[in-house]
Amino acid sequence: MAERTLSEDLGVGGASLRHFKLVRDPRGTLAVADFGADVPFVPARYFVVFDVPGERGRGGHAHVSCHQVLACVRGSVRIELDDGARRAEVLLDGPGTGLHVPPMVWCAQHFLVPDAVLLVFASEPYDPEDYVRDRARFLALRAASGA
Amino acid sequence: MAERTLSEDLGVGGASLRHFKLVRDPRGTLAVADFGADVPFVPARYFVVFDVPGERGRGGHAHVSCHQVLACVRGSVRIELDDGARRAEVLLDGPGTGLHVPPMVWCAQHFLVPDAVLLVFASEPYDPEDYVRDRARFLALRAASGA
Repeated sequence: MAERTLSEDLGVGGASLRHFKLVRDPRGTLAVADFGADVPFVPARYFVVFDVPGERGRGGHAHVSCHQVLACVRGSVRIELDDGARRAEVLLDGPGTGLHVPPMVWCAQHFLVPDAVLLVFASEPYDPEDYVRDRARFLALRAASGA
Repeated sequence: MAERTLSEDLGVGGASLRHFKLVRDPRGTLAVADFGADVPFVPARYFVVFDVPGERGRGGHAHVSCHQVLACVRGSVRIELDDGARRAEVLLDGPGTGLHVPPMVWCAQHFLVPDAVLLVFASEPYDPEDYVRDRARFLALRAASGA
């Protein structure tokens, strides 16, 4: 397709905001994304996060090799990202925006309303070994990679 | 993974309900699906349908070769399916259930609440030629295929 997603680099470990195509007509609105392009990988799996109690954060970890794209399809979610040196905060509040979180970017999520729904695409099958939940280990891995 | 999605055949052109794994903990709930398994294909694209005005239907078409999986991640959507001979109606009302709609199954959607959000995975890139919107053509193609 000729139309492509606008990508907005966040300056944090390669993370970017992806603005998807919106198609509006009297029957409703579609947010549309092609895998391998708008979402910059073909996903192995997806998950939907919902029924998150108020003021509870989720996440606070990084992945060794898994890429993720997060889209808030209902309500709003505040995301904190950092690569050990630089940090960014973004608000996701509609299906038209995706956040690409590359490997070795620390990511924490704060659900701002109880009915928020977060859609997450992952480039790799589930592997508990891919999670880095310890902050000191994250910083050590970052330092070791020379990033 | 050892745990697999339960699939429930609807008796309409191969359409089935897929019950995804739900992971609940104090931080919220996850509905999890692997592509190529729980969702029985690796998608080329996805779209999110939202802001649908009350009592408006969507869909009412079939695809020649594209498979789709529909999941209602917020609110509820009533789906009518038929293969020209047999019909079924299903209610999608949470992220834990997906509806697999194979090619040449007619599908119409009715958004039951204004804040309903429907997530759709498609096995093929967008191709307007793949849509069959004319009911008589659908029935003729069905008859020609001997299905």
